[in-house]
Amino acid sequence: MTVAAQMLQTYPKDLGGLDPEKLATCVEACFECAAACTACADACLSEDMVAELTTCVRVNQDCADLCETTGRVLSRHTGYDPDLTRCVLLACAVACKACATECESHARAHEHCRVCAEACRRCEQACRALLDDLGGVS
Amino acid sequence: MTVAAQMLQTYPKDLGGLDPEKLATCVEACFECAAACTACADACLSEDMVAELTTCVRVNQDCADLCETTGRVLSRHTGYDPDLTRCVLLACAVACKACATECESHARAHEHCRVCAEACRRCEQACRALLDDLGGVS
Amino acid sequence: MTVAAQMLQTYPKDLGGLDPEKLATCVEACFECAAACTACADACLSEDMVAELTTCVRVNQDCADLCETTGRVLSRHTGYDPDLTRCVLLACAVACKACATECESHARAHEHCRVCAEACRRCEQACRALLDDLGGVS
Amino acid sequence: MTVAAQMLQTYPKDLGGLDPEKLATCVEACFECAAACTACADACLSEDMVAELTTCVRVNQDCADLCETTGRVLSRHTGYDPDLTRCVLLACAVACKACATECESHARAHEHCRVCAEACRRCEQACRALLDDLGGVS
Repeated sequence: MTVAAQMLQTYPKDLGGLDPEKLATCVEACFECAAACTACADACLSEDMVAELTTCVRVNQDCADLCETTGRVLSRHTGYDPDLTRCVLLACAVACKACATECESHARAHEHCRVCAEACRRCEQACRALLDDLGGVS
Repeated sequence: MTVAAQMLQTYPKDLGGLDPEKLATCVEACFECAAACTACADACLSEDMVAELTTCVRVNQDCADLCETTGRVLSRHTGYDPDLTRCVLLACAVACKACATECESHARAHEHCRVCAEACRRCEQACRALLDDLGGVS
Repeated sequence: MTVAAQMLQTYPKDLGGLDPEKLATCVEACFECAAACTACADACLSEDMVAELTTCVRVNQDCADLCETTGRVLSRHTGYDPDLTRCVLLACAVACKACATECESHARAHEHCRVCAEACRRCEQACRALLDDLGGVS
Repeated sequence: MTVAAQMLQTYPKDLGGLDPEKLATCVEACFECAAACTACADACLSEDMVAELTTCVRVNQDCADLCETTGRVLSRHTGYDPDLTRCVLLACAVACKACATECESHARAHEHCRVCAEACRRCEQACRALLDDLGGVS
């Protein structure tokens, strides 16, 4: 069991009706995607053709920041607010989709973009699955 | 002139049609609100009646993370993406409103909550002003 | 192979002489510890005896922020600076040790503190192993 | 009075013997420097000669992350730990110095680097002033 899943399991109160498995999957996907995007931004920066990758660096950085913030918000259950959770998940899904699309466009040329795009797609899906669970918006 | 405004003024390319003044105001409001919320969470934690302030601590932390991420996203102009900007601004405005409402509810008892609520309201307004500028949320 | 390890393997230039395995272990430990500490702070906040856990919440938050920043710094290899890396690793190890010590002191009463303390100890060790690799702190 | 100073003034307990003015100056300098570095990284990314500025982008990002974490740690007073504060301040001062040095080396060519270098120097000085106050290490 991952540390994120263990932390959910040991939370002393209830989780506001969220599915613990979908929640754990989403928290893990967010932090994994944040890590991948931080590394991908730097790998792009080290490519000789960096001038053609500046949009990728930028979207990587936005996605890293949003995934990290989303992972943090989803790791807090005290005083749970479904409206805020929905807005954050939606912004995260949009950032992941934008980053995945950008990274996929040069995944053949750059292995780091291929790995990063996969992490972004997993995170986008996990955010959308949790949004479905929450109802409304999405 | 603030450092945020100076950084906007020295950006070498154009700003994607965003109003530089509203943008500077919003960036500053985001970072100021993030700082206020981080401090307010800790001030609540030090109150003797902390057990009654746990929701405030939580919403402070969410708001700090979202404001910081929003301030960062708004500080990047390369490869500007209006859809992502809109979603992030909306999530930030929702977080600021939730935190302002919570802090206002005990602003009389706790000066730090009063100061923090004001920073949250300023940030919420700045995000909404920039959203208006960007046109309809998709 | 984890995403962090894959990102290291696909980095297009060299890694400044750092051992890729120790580096991957440390990056993963930092992000795992950041996640554990964020969740532990919130779990403490939800305990009925929160008034006795405020130091734990605080040190959890510091440790989360430091581990995340350290994980980010270690995920960037372009323009590698060993002096900065050393200082950051040292600050992270100190934060992890402080958080582990605090969490261990009530690990019997709170399962989340036990899980978090273990993540902190793993991260502290990973930081120290990488510091050894880097040679004397200047 | 800035929001950071107001938050310090409304903190309900004592500040562990730290000088409130030096503390407020340092918190503000950290958050200002984080904002400047985030913007400078993106401004460098938008320059036609980005390939010559990749080290600057990287050190900007490290400095932004460290300043933000340091500003957060310094905004928390509950359960104050002077050893951790010292290590964090030292790492932040080292990051600010590295970033200032890099930015100064092309401050004539790029106005954003000039503004950013000044923010880094202010933050480095504020961290060192607080370290002096704390005694030991430094």
